[in-house]
Amino acid sequence: MIRSSSSQSRPRPQPTRSPSFAPTLRRRTTSLSLPADPNTSDPEEALATTTEHTIQEEIAEIKRYEDFTTIDWVQDAAREQLRRKARRKERAGFWADANGRIGWRRKIAEAYDAGQAWIVVTLVGAAIGLNAAFLNIVTEWLSDIKLGHCSTAFYLNENFCCWGAENGCPEWKRWSGFWPLNYGLYILFAALFSLTAASLVKAFAPYAAGSGISEIKCIIAGFVMKGFLGAWTLVIKSIGLPLAIASGLSVGKEGPSVHYAVCTGNVISRFFDKYRRNAAKTREILSASAAAGVGVAFGSPIGGVLFSLEEMSNYFPLKTMWRSYFCALVATAVLAAMNPFRTGQLVMFQVKYDRSWHFFEILFYLIIGVFGGLYGAFVIKWNLRVQAFRKKYLAKYPIIESVTLAVFTGIICYPNMFLRIDMTESMEILFQECEGDHDYDELCERQNRWRMILSLAVATVLRTFLVIISYGCKVPAGIFVPSMAIGASFGRMVGIFVQHLHESFPTSAFFAACEPDGPCITPGTYAFLGAAAALSGIMHITVSVVVIMFELTGALTYILPTMIVVGVTKAVSERFGHGGIADRAIWFNGYPFLDNKEEHTFGVPVSQVMASHIVSLPATGMELRALERIVGKNQYQGYPIVEDSTSKTLIGYIGRTELKYAIDRAKRDQMAPGHARCTFSTDTSGTEARTPSSTMPSVTFDTMSATSAQLNVDFSKFIDPTPLTVHPRLPLETVMELFKKMGPRVILIEYRGRLTGLVTVKDCLKYQFKVEAHENPQQPNSSMDERQEKLWGVIRHTAMWVDAKLNVVRRKMGIGGGDIRLLSPTSQGSERERERERLRDADGDGDSEVELEDRGSPSGRRHDR
Amino acid sequence: MIRSSSSQSRPRPQPTRSPSFAPTLRRRTTSLSLPADPNTSDPEEALATTTEHTIQEEIAEIKRYEDFTTIDWVQDAAREQLRRKARRKERAGFWADANGRIGWRRKIAEAYDAGQAWIVVTLVGAAIGLNAAFLNIVTEWLSDIKLGHCSTAFYLNENFCCWGAENGCPEWKRWSGFWPLNYGLYILFAALFSLTAASLVKAFAPYAAGSGISEIKCIIAGFVMKGFLGAWTLVIKSIGLPLAIASGLSVGKEGPSVHYAVCTGNVISRFFDKYRRNAAKTREILSASAAAGVGVAFGSPIGGVLFSLEEMSNYFPLKTMWRSYFCALVATAVLAAMNPFRTGQLVMFQVKYDRSWHFFEILFYLIIGVFGGLYGAFVIKWNLRVQAFRKKYLAKYPIIESVTLAVFTGIICYPNMFLRIDMTESMEILFQECEGDHDYDELCERQNRWRMILSLAVATVLRTFLVIISYGCKVPAGIFVPSMAIGASFGRMVGIFVQHLHESFPTSAFFAACEPDGPCITPGTYAFLGAAAALSGIMHITVSVVVIMFELTGALTYILPTMIVVGVTKAVSERFGHGGIADRAIWFNGYPFLDNKEEHTFGVPVSQVMASHIVSLPATGMELRALERIVGKNQYQGYPIVEDSTSKTLIGYIGRTELKYAIDRAKRDQMAPGHARCTFSTDTSGTEARTPSSTMPSVTFDTMSATSAQLNVDFSKFIDPTPLTVHPRLPLETVMELFKKMGPRVILIEYRGRLTGLVTVKDCLKYQFKVEAHENPQQPNSSMDERQEKLWGVIRHTAMWVDAKLNVVRRKMGIGGGDIRLLSPTSQGSERERERERLRDADGDGDSEVELEDRGSPSGRRHDR
Repeated sequence: MIRSSSSQSRPRPQPTRSPSFAPTLRRRTTSLSLPADPNTSDPEEALATTTEHTIQEEIAEIKRYEDFTTIDWVQDAAREQLRRKARRKERAGFWADANGRIGWRRKIAEAYDAGQAWIVVTLVGAAIGLNAAFLNIVTEWLSDIKLGHCSTAFYLNENFCCWGAENGCPEWKRWSGFWPLNYGLYILFAALFSLTAASLVKAFAPYAAGSGISEIKCIIAGFVMKGFLGAWTLVIKSIGLPLAIASGLSVGKEGPSVHYAVCTGNVISRFFDKYRRNAAKTREILSASAAAGVGVAFGSPIGGVLFSLEEMSNYFPLKTMWRSYFCALVATAVLAAMNPFRTGQLVMFQVKYDRSWHFFEILFYLIIGVFGGLYGAFVIKWNLRVQAFRKKYLAKYPIIESVTLAVFTGIICYPNMFLRIDMTESMEILFQECEGDHDYDELCERQNRWRMILSLAVATVLRTFLVIISYGCKVPAGIFVPSMAIGASFGRMVGIFVQHLHESFPTSAFFAACEPDGPCITPGTYAFLGAAAALSGIMHITVSVVVIMFELTGALTYILPTMIVVGVTKAVSERFGHGGIADRAIWFNGYPFLDNKEEHTFGVPVSQVMASHIVSLPATGMELRALERIVGKNQYQGYPIVEDSTSKTLIGYIGRTELKYAIDRAKRDQMAPGHARCTFSTDTSGTEARTPSSTMPSVTFDTMSATSAQLNVDFSKFIDPTPLTVHPRLPLETVMELFKKMGPRVILIEYRGRLTGLVTVKDCLKYQFKVEAHENPQQPNSSMDERQEKLWGVIRHTAMWVDAKLNVVRRKMGIGGGDIRLLSPTSQGSERERERERLRDADGDGDSEVELEDRGSPSGRRHDR
Repeated sequence: MIRSSSSQSRPRPQPTRSPSFAPTLRRRTTSLSLPADPNTSDPEEALATTTEHTIQEEIAEIKRYEDFTTIDWVQDAAREQLRRKARRKERAGFWADANGRIGWRRKIAEAYDAGQAWIVVTLVGAAIGLNAAFLNIVTEWLSDIKLGHCSTAFYLNENFCCWGAENGCPEWKRWSGFWPLNYGLYILFAALFSLTAASLVKAFAPYAAGSGISEIKCIIAGFVMKGFLGAWTLVIKSIGLPLAIASGLSVGKEGPSVHYAVCTGNVISRFFDKYRRNAAKTREILSASAAAGVGVAFGSPIGGVLFSLEEMSNYFPLKTMWRSYFCALVATAVLAAMNPFRTGQLVMFQVKYDRSWHFFEILFYLIIGVFGGLYGAFVIKWNLRVQAFRKKYLAKYPIIESVTLAVFTGIICYPNMFLRIDMTESMEILFQECEGDHDYDELCERQNRWRMILSLAVATVLRTFLVIISYGCKVPAGIFVPSMAIGASFGRMVGIFVQHLHESFPTSAFFAACEPDGPCITPGTYAFLGAAAALSGIMHITVSVVVIMFELTGALTYILPTMIVVGVTKAVSERFGHGGIADRAIWFNGYPFLDNKEEHTFGVPVSQVMASHIVSLPATGMELRALERIVGKNQYQGYPIVEDSTSKTLIGYIGRTELKYAIDRAKRDQMAPGHARCTFSTDTSGTEARTPSSTMPSVTFDTMSATSAQLNVDFSKFIDPTPLTVHPRLPLETVMELFKKMGPRVILIEYRGRLTGLVTVKDCLKYQFKVEAHENPQQPNSSMDERQEKLWGVIRHTAMWVDAKLNVVRRKMGIGGGDIRLLSPTSQGSERERERERLRDADGDGDSEVELEDRGSPSGRRHDR
């Protein structure tokens, strides 16, 4: 292996510089291309198209493996055009082979090509549905095994074990009759589950930790994170999620559901040629998968589509909406067919509110709405601080952290009746009307009211605290369901209070709308609205929350109250901070993502933001070795090509990847020497006067004339001859719109044909941060750092104390080793911090690479910096 | 008045050509500007900004009155930036007046500015809600008055008249006990209502006819149609809609609801400074209003938001979604508070399906889905033909046509039990489960099944026919509810059939999922699904249909069946035609609208589509009279500005409106003679070498140097110095994306700094039509024309015969006049046809004006051609 590769890289005896060299080069270039189809009308053009197509495919293949870069959507679309053209040509030849006619075979092939999208979406949807059913079953079994086991068959959960049993269920046995032992086992199982989940994540797929929604937003917007949507992540996330939920941590399954769904979409679409190469098409599938992920998590297909639209996708054409619709449909249909809960329906918490609402209740709805907004702002702020702390101090101890959290959660949650049980179950209870047969622990009893209010208040506060410290720990963890559970407990508390008010003053004018005798207030509806408010407050989404809540419960009479509550929450949230927790996490991690929720007014032309001292390449005459030196020296992601360095007439743009590929190819295949001249343009005679119509060169490549037989290497087919260009005085806002809507990687600034600058998303973000920092000057973070340092000290001391105690126990029991050593913050952590700072501070150096935080992908970092 | 205006237009004695002329010019220009604020740091710049701001405002004012043009969104955004900058400057001065500090007053003013949007949206929503409540009450009263009257108070409808009455209602009296007389009165009322509606529309607001959805789509996309969203249209549409519905025509209220809602939004937002000038902001309000319109029509706020997103708006940022959400919320809340139906809830047809669905029913759901798709394709095709016929032959007889249709509808609908009653009521009956107390005319009786199936089949066919001929007649008329009624009758038919099957073969394996005894099939659910399918089929919308159906009925258990049916319908629809009936109507009317639902692969560069022989203006040296001649001679919407006609270095772009305004101002205010030289550029020394950083001129205007004291007129502040430019080899698809996403009116093609072409949306559409015509060659339309001619002959003969008979009757009864004369198709009609053809055929003349069909606005045509 090594031999052959070295023989490849070692140059063969170089031909002497002779006039015959150029033709040789040419022949070599041609021989690399696919065999051209003889049947096409214009073989020259077909050849050129196919050659270019091949090259593009090879470069696309390389780009797939470039981590932490962004996709250039404009170039991607152009490449897709080329691909289609090539395919059409290819196929026209192939199918007309028989006797010149184009028959049904071609039609079938075309139908397959067109229908591929639907095949992929169907497969993806079905896979997501199956996976969701599997997850549900496993989660339920794991949650039940903490409490007891089925004596008939250990693999049955409580529900199935007791299937059909009317009163009592002797088959299901608790672990023991002694409650402290049960409690101990409960904690032990929690620790075991979180340990397993965190170990799996750490060992096999670090990207499987957390929610993943922020990263997927960036990926759908065009950011490349290798492995984030890979098969390993899919597997580990699918295994780790039930463990994490069953461990009792205050984490939900929705974010991770989106993540594993998008992984599924990515993994499956890779098997299809249409998607392997085309990033834009893949993005459609990813958006659709995200919709299906929320759809199966909540049993809410339309809510999923809207979530994908409102939160995940920064560009959502209608075609994507239909794909998402279909994918969510298939996924939920499969889930419904599997019917893991054996309830026969998708509605998760079927509620039936008999009474309609009264106008006076709007006052209390406003309170709930305000709570939602405040909750969101509070949790986002403090969770980000915890994340910063985690990054700085705890990055090396993901497993210990998760296990500690699980044990801690188990210990403090047990005494509270609403925290003890599963969050979903707790929500179901809180949503119930008090009329009818169901009653959980006398929630509806009149005499218990104040006790219930207290209990719910404690649950609200404790759960909020737990969410703040748990979200972001290194197991698969979402924040939807915990937020909803918090909202529900707060809402129920308000509801019980209002009910109490009404029953205390039944005749007051305020309650005039109530019917004279009998109940008037339904506390369950307040819980429902509280859940909606908290969900909206944490994610800053509106329409999808309303739809999800309906699909979740079916409480359609309450559409206006839900809309009012969510509207108030939205208004309150907008007073604080920019965007929901996912957007803030993007900002926190420094991903190059232009948020299209925000609108800025800078009032400056793009020339104030652009990098004006840029390295451009002359169209002709540059030596290969000089080119290599440039590529080696600086790390720009691409180079504009100008006619010559004095006139600076813009000719095109070449990406770093393309340039490196071209240099490699020239050296390897054409054996070009270092002093060979590189030509980037087919049209070097730009100075002569032409009529406008003739200035558009047709798409011809390989047109290097044999007469100018110098040592020329033709790079013209690697350049992008039509980069997006704008005038230097164009407002920055318009340029940012261009980035958001068209998605180029770079926009060149051209003034009367001359290159004057270059601007990237990062330059825009830098300027934006600068303006924001200027508008809201922050106090120095030193006091915060100090407090973090103190906290870390406390944690370290506690850990050492625990470790010492454990060692005593261990020594007594004769178990060795397993020492825990907590070190001071690693340089790695603070380096990351600084890296992020670097993106945020606007140094204006005008470099165009993308700097960002990486999360230590297992396959090793490959920053091209 | 006439004197003063003539004295203004008559030039004062012209100053002789003297060196002092230029300063005079300058002073005049300055004196026109707003008084500059002395407190700002840079008075020169502030002055320039304010001056330019004023000019922009004046031009914007003119543009508001330019009919049938498109908005340039890029320029609009730039103008908004300028406006904000000017305001900020202005305000900074004003508020700091007291003692240099900026206090709470400024904060309040800023909060008002920021909150204006919400104020407007609230007002608009409330107005829409009130209007909807009014419409509902009037419609119900009018529908009831056809059958009888309330003896206690004539203004009460049957419901309110009989309020609280348990069995029988003596207060409500039918007109007589003799049914033929009742029938006659019924027809008479129908004729009267349609006569009134059509007359009102014809006399006051021709734009109030029809649905309006297509036009609003174009308007939201940036097309200007003066009066289409005016106050008159609002009033007439609000009055005409109840009349049209009560007349019994097969028309619905949803399209018109959207139209009057958007009118409301437009009218109200005009009172606010922020919206008067800014087209992009107004568009947000219009999108929000459309959502509220659907919201109140169906009682479905979220469905409205999604409809606005899926159908109305070609660009829907999240901010607009929140506005729409809020507007729909306010509108439906107001409607709910008004409670016009006294049912206390928004759900229109509350249904409660006890049984869940079975998997074997999916087979029948597929049938319903296919029906929806076929129905849509069929109706769209034939309705467009009827529209063509109407345009050609019936354009002059809108009133006669409407009345005839109403009478005809009344006559043929009476015998069928499902057609006789109101469409909404009919749907409510068809959606019902057969269990329970309600039963309409023995629909659920087992022995009547075959009769019901027949009756429903007849209803389906007849209603389809009526929809085809009625939709588009000159009264306010939507197509949602009729389509849903058709779908419901078809669905119920299928449902009864399946029920029959099940009861005939209860033990077959196919029905194994059914419970052994007792009913299994709920025909009402089939009706529900049929309505969803037909609605989706006609409009080609998916997600919004699903949500609307839920909000309409609350049948959430049936979410998966609904999604399946709508999905199938969507798939079938896509096999036929491009887009729903609204999109086809846009195409039919030739509006310049780039549909973002479709994606094309042309595989050509923009240079093949652009106009390359364009009239450009040199930056300096052109005489004013030559400029006037150019503007007078051709009708291009704008002119690129080049440095000189040989180098063709692109400098900017000037719109026709701006140029005319500038010429007028120069002649009027500066008394510039015809031989004055016009300067378009402040930077005429473009040929000298500069460093890149110095080539960005800062935003300075009025910089005409007094030393070059020729007879120069400075037009530089009227030009757009930063038009969007692209490379000639950029793929056409990318250019179309630019048009769709950025919304410029024109894109210039620049090759190495030289202007080489110009492309407009129209050029792209022309090319698209050409490609489509090439791909699907149509048979010549002569046979169609012949058949239309024959049909017209028949109609004319019938009309003459009726006229003669009526004359006999009239003469006998002594009533004179009222003769109806039907003429051969007017030249006007065919001229319009030809006009439309002109847009569709690709003559490639490269003119950039917008040609289209106008509908004879009452204020007279103002085509700027």
